[in-house]
Amino acid sequence: MSHSKKLKLGLIGGGPGSFIGAIHLNGALMDGLFELAAGAFSSNPEKSKQRGEELMLPPNRVYASYDEMFESELALPEEERIDVVCIVTPNHMHFDPTIKALEHGFHVALDKPLTLNYEQAKKLYHAVQKSDQLFLLTHTYSGYPMIKQAKQMIQNGEIGKVRKVYVEYPQGWLWKLLEHENNKQAAWRTDPTKNGKAGCMGDIGTHAFHMAEYVTGEKVTHICADLYIKIDGRPIDDDGVVLMRFENGASGVLMASQTDTGLENNLKIRVFGEKGGLEWEQELNNTLLARWPDRPDEIYRAGTGYLGSLANANTRTPAGHPEGYVEAFANLYRNFARCIYAKKAGEKPLPEWEDFPGVEDGIRGMAFIDHVLASNVSEQKWTPFIVEK
Amino acid sequence: MSHSKKLKLGLIGGGPGSFIGAIHLNGALMDGLFELAAGAFSSNPEKSKQRGEELMLPPNRVYASYDEMFESELALPEEERIDVVCIVTPNHMHFDPTIKALEHGFHVALDKPLTLNYEQAKKLYHAVQKSDQLFLLTHTYSGYPMIKQAKQMIQNGEIGKVRKVYVEYPQGWLWKLLEHENNKQAAWRTDPTKNGKAGCMGDIGTHAFHMAEYVTGEKVTHICADLYIKIDGRPIDDDGVVLMRFENGASGVLMASQTDTGLENNLKIRVFGEKGGLEWEQELNNTLLARWPDRPDEIYRAGTGYLGSLANANTRTPAGHPEGYVEAFANLYRNFARCIYAKKAGEKPLPEWEDFPGVEDGIRGMAFIDHVLASNVSEQKWTPFIVEK
Amino acid sequence: MSHSKKLKLGLIGGGPGSFIGAIHLNGALMDGLFELAAGAFSSNPEKSKQRGEELMLPPNRVYASYDEMFESELALPEEERIDVVCIVTPNHMHFDPTIKALEHGFHVALDKPLTLNYEQAKKLYHAVQKSDQLFLLTHTYSGYPMIKQAKQMIQNGEIGKVRKVYVEYPQGWLWKLLEHENNKQAAWRTDPTKNGKAGCMGDIGTHAFHMAEYVTGEKVTHICADLYIKIDGRPIDDDGVVLMRFENGASGVLMASQTDTGLENNLKIRVFGEKGGLEWEQELNNTLLARWPDRPDEIYRAGTGYLGSLANANTRTPAGHPEGYVEAFANLYRNFARCIYAKKAGEKPLPEWEDFPGVEDGIRGMAFIDHVLASNVSEQKWTPFIVEK
Amino acid sequence: MSHSKKLKLGLIGGGPGSFIGAIHLNGALMDGLFELAAGAFSSNPEKSKQRGEELMLPPNRVYASYDEMFESELALPEEERIDVVCIVTPNHMHFDPTIKALEHGFHVALDKPLTLNYEQAKKLYHAVQKSDQLFLLTHTYSGYPMIKQAKQMIQNGEIGKVRKVYVEYPQGWLWKLLEHENNKQAAWRTDPTKNGKAGCMGDIGTHAFHMAEYVTGEKVTHICADLYIKIDGRPIDDDGVVLMRFENGASGVLMASQTDTGLENNLKIRVFGEKGGLEWEQELNNTLLARWPDRPDEIYRAGTGYLGSLANANTRTPAGHPEGYVEAFANLYRNFARCIYAKKAGEKPLPEWEDFPGVEDGIRGMAFIDHVLASNVSEQKWTPFIVEK
Repeated sequence: MSHSKKLKLGLIGGGPGSFIGAIHLNGALMDGLFELAAGAFSSNPEKSKQRGEELMLPPNRVYASYDEMFESELALPEEERIDVVCIVTPNHMHFDPTIKALEHGFHVALDKPLTLNYEQAKKLYHAVQKSDQLFLLTHTYSGYPMIKQAKQMIQNGEIGKVRKVYVEYPQGWLWKLLEHENNKQAAWRTDPTKNGKAGCMGDIGTHAFHMAEYVTGEKVTHICADLYIKIDGRPIDDDGVVLMRFENGASGVLMASQTDTGLENNLKIRVFGEKGGLEWEQELNNTLLARWPDRPDEIYRAGTGYLGSLANANTRTPAGHPEGYVEAFANLYRNFARCIYAKKAGEKPLPEWEDFPGVEDGIRGMAFIDHVLASNVSEQKWTPFIVEK
Repeated sequence: MSHSKKLKLGLIGGGPGSFIGAIHLNGALMDGLFELAAGAFSSNPEKSKQRGEELMLPPNRVYASYDEMFESELALPEEERIDVVCIVTPNHMHFDPTIKALEHGFHVALDKPLTLNYEQAKKLYHAVQKSDQLFLLTHTYSGYPMIKQAKQMIQNGEIGKVRKVYVEYPQGWLWKLLEHENNKQAAWRTDPTKNGKAGCMGDIGTHAFHMAEYVTGEKVTHICADLYIKIDGRPIDDDGVVLMRFENGASGVLMASQTDTGLENNLKIRVFGEKGGLEWEQELNNTLLARWPDRPDEIYRAGTGYLGSLANANTRTPAGHPEGYVEAFANLYRNFARCIYAKKAGEKPLPEWEDFPGVEDGIRGMAFIDHVLASNVSEQKWTPFIVEK
Repeated sequence: MSHSKKLKLGLIGGGPGSFIGAIHLNGALMDGLFELAAGAFSSNPEKSKQRGEELMLPPNRVYASYDEMFESELALPEEERIDVVCIVTPNHMHFDPTIKALEHGFHVALDKPLTLNYEQAKKLYHAVQKSDQLFLLTHTYSGYPMIKQAKQMIQNGEIGKVRKVYVEYPQGWLWKLLEHENNKQAAWRTDPTKNGKAGCMGDIGTHAFHMAEYVTGEKVTHICADLYIKIDGRPIDDDGVVLMRFENGASGVLMASQTDTGLENNLKIRVFGEKGGLEWEQELNNTLLARWPDRPDEIYRAGTGYLGSLANANTRTPAGHPEGYVEAFANLYRNFARCIYAKKAGEKPLPEWEDFPGVEDGIRGMAFIDHVLASNVSEQKWTPFIVEK
Repeated sequence: MSHSKKLKLGLIGGGPGSFIGAIHLNGALMDGLFELAAGAFSSNPEKSKQRGEELMLPPNRVYASYDEMFESELALPEEERIDVVCIVTPNHMHFDPTIKALEHGFHVALDKPLTLNYEQAKKLYHAVQKSDQLFLLTHTYSGYPMIKQAKQMIQNGEIGKVRKVYVEYPQGWLWKLLEHENNKQAAWRTDPTKNGKAGCMGDIGTHAFHMAEYVTGEKVTHICADLYIKIDGRPIDDDGVVLMRFENGASGVLMASQTDTGLENNLKIRVFGEKGGLEWEQELNNTLLARWPDRPDEIYRAGTGYLGSLANANTRTPAGHPEGYVEAFANLYRNFARCIYAKKAGEKPLPEWEDFPGVEDGIRGMAFIDHVLASNVSEQKWTPFIVEK
């Protein structure tokens, strides 16, 4: 597909000390489909300006607020103005800029989780549905090629009907009260007013939940949650387990923690079916293990010639040249861009391009947060999982 | 410690087609502390005779029943008769021969789980308590040196107060109805009259439960179980998850399955504390990983010079010469033998020798089975875990 | 350091079917320090135009030849014209565009190996020495953070005096005569007129050689080479081993192959010293193993808080968010850019920024090729390694 | 096959402080086919007596010398006397007891390498050839089931014609002058009068050489050796590399070291053929990796149902119950015993049983030592490898 110019990106958030803002940029820029054109990097105008200079933006495209950005950009000639707004602020600042970006006619790439709370989520869900713009929610891990391969192998029935899902996301970085040690990331992510009322389950449990549904293609129908605050003095959960039941009768276990001292970020999923199993872990992301009961297990590798179309559409290096986390982001952005270009051209995007997470995934993630918290305080074992829209 | 003759072993079970009987023998014989002296290998006298010949026993020491063995051996001069009875029959034949062996004055090594049901367990518990004989229950996995090292490091406070335990025991061998395909192992292990009323949870869940309590030194106080029969037509559970709470406030997840298609036998435990974490998996049993939040993770290896006394007392090769499953059995038997020799000599055994599983572990395992089944059918989330004796 | 605009890149090569051209671009673009401004993508003007369109360049910045590009760009106002030429053509087209780029005042990033032959290498060496421009040779693997960490740990004496180096680069992609199957990569890389007279040793042996010297900080003084053409009909080596001696007395083995059937690209280096050892492999690039004789081995991980300044300056994600091959390229380009900015600003770059491979590494690599070929046909075991300039 | 009594073992060596003597015993005893019946454990009669007591032998079967053992045992009634002599002394005491044991009519199991020097090796070679007794040389690593599987897959042509062999045996235990620190193992293994004139190459290089020829089924025809004494003051080599050429045209690299600081005992072999490759490492001995160029790599696992007859005949546990180094020894002893029983019964042993290393392997190992030392001091690159008998 041919297109004549890069998509222009306006960034909201990602000021000094941000982690995820820089990663979004790395991912969006890598493939040369986006260029950073504008930004409202901080609610502090000085910091926004400083970050704009670091990013070598012209001063007139660096804004003191996103409201200002929306207005000013809309006033620019169409070929100069931004096409896409990328929102990388803490969770309490997801809703408002997304709604406004859509209203101003910009496509939106938003960091997960969708919103601060479920009420916002429902509104945003309908806003996106009604909007003519495209919407990307960056559940990064679904961008890895071997996760795509797992999804496609399961779709193709290679492991038979799914019986069991283990998904775990054990981190250790909040092993102590880092939020009292002037750590900006820890501070907002343990503050319910900024992060939302679920801590660990909101921050990374939602990733694990998305992964389980994305890879298996099955939806959760019931949950049983057991959450903990492992460190005294922390206001929200930093650890927990969620038992799950899926619509096809499969069962699952979701484990997430930020207090498994010493661990990094090794999201791992294992799915077992009637004929075989699949295993993937993020720290070895270029490998997918296939388990078979009656022949040798197999090691599927990214970039090889025997993979399916979904993996192939999300790889850029040949086998043995590892891609990683930034490339998983880049895959989301590349697919998003391809769909925007297709839309501009009035063409139908390939199914592989459309395979990026959106508002449907987002509202399910927000429902996950609410249901997990409800189940945690319930004495009943099982809580039905119902997504109201 | 010096002792003048090998301990004589009388084997009950382990006839043709047995899996675990041969392994017990490998383990018991390896270190030259035991010799096989007698056996009642099958309830079928012909099969018992055949197995006795294979094992090169004199015909007069091969018995048609364990009752016959007990009587006949007792009639032999003390220095000829067996010292220890090793019972490797299916679970429904644990109780009777154990009780009788104790009554006849023999030490007993018994395969897990303790008995067919809890009623038997309580009786056996008291029988062992009252007896003057030593009793070994072969929770094999606690015999691995790096599991001993993990236990000792936790005891020493190296990872701080334990917060979290993951223990998983995923197998795949019962991925289909193997019990209908003339597989002797599958047949009795899925038959509640022989295996007991819990399938997967009885067979391997009890191993995982023992591992969790053994390594951490903490006792479970509450559980929440979710069991499944994944294959239609099977009468007992073949898969499940158990949430756990420990007396020190730690939480845990126990996962066991015999239907994770394609998997072998990779029992794995991860324990996280306030200062660090430990990870061990059986298929890489000579390695223990230590996770630290602020310095490089460490790889503890069996047979090295820096291990503690518990690991050292349970190793026979230098680093890099892997020991395995049979050696884990051999460690249990060697420690058991050392304690029998000490007892004979009127000496106090070393604490490292006494560190083998016994009837206390056994009754807790039987309580685990009962509580897991009760919790599984309860609508209440949590079931208190109480071990009646 | 503040700078006001992105560096403008002019690409030579990287036309349709190129592998490495796209990767250079991914790496250069990712951090937002470069923008693609011009290109002469193919010696076929139609293909160059086509690639320019794909890359969304304005048509007037897409050239039919690099000569045209140099002339036209130089005619542009300084703030519009390209700053850096990036050359990703096959080896026989390295020398001429590099020389001319330098003469026209452009900085140069060149894919390895330096040139087609040693004669060119000497000339280019002196041209770079005399030039006022900066020069980057993309020995990618030296851009990985954990390789930087290894280098710094060895510099700091953490493993003591180096005694032994194993470096291996086993690939399998040329396991059959792919060059007869219309594979563009295989075709030029097995053609001595395009690749140079060494096949495997030129293409990947030079990477391994660079890695050995880079990580240890020691220079090779003698070699003994044993090369093979494993597939009949191939004109140049596709497999070989080189024994090495280093100036400090250490010994080494370098193994490289393109015919180890089934392998991907797992460059691996192991260095052992008087006090410990280090191990790194590219397919697990975020991990560096430290081996110790008297305490547990350690797992150093990218993105953690305990790494040295060299690794830290070459990372962009926190621990457990894997970076890969494209990021290794990006590290070379980012350091190169930082040094160009420093030069423009008349400032001294940080030592960490200056740590990228250049023409000195390049000429040693070309000497490696010549000496390896000479040693291979010599009946003498050892050939002195002398780098004439 | 039925047999009526255990084989009686007479042990020579294995006194206090021995490493390998105890391991031989573990391996021989494990399967219940051997019993220890006599011993001459040390040239020091007191120490021999002490070890005999530890092993619970009757005092009259503990000898002050092997000469005494041979005479006294021969004087016993045939059904009481030892059947097999197991020799685990340092290398300088291999030749004499082996020759005498054969002369006295005992089967012999001997630790490698065959003898102290090549002259002895030739004599012993002919003595075994002329003898009616069976002879086992314990190249342990060829007893691993997945090594057997690799051999059989290569025999079956599964990876096509072999092109390339990497075999490495890197240890670190002699990283310093341990022989000056009262370490008995280090003392004799670095003493040319006890170990033979090659140090590392004799001790472990011979294992690696045997592995290369055993697995591939190809014989070495030329070598090029490069040996080192890495620690000043040590009289013999402790590190080296040997390039190899095989009769079928394949090439190979053999790396062995005792001074790769921090390493344990990870013998590793990789073989690549025209159609695929195989990889095995001792520290992960239950796994064999198969590499394929056009489909996913495969993980072959010990104890599974899809292995060949050679692996199956050398396994005792089901998949996922790891066997290790002692079991590799046990496999050699079990096969040896099966052949002795067959001989006694006048039956033809199965080919799988006869697959244990013997004197032919032994003399090739001794030739390896001599040729490696000769090549090391030669200025010629290649030395033909010729085994004189």
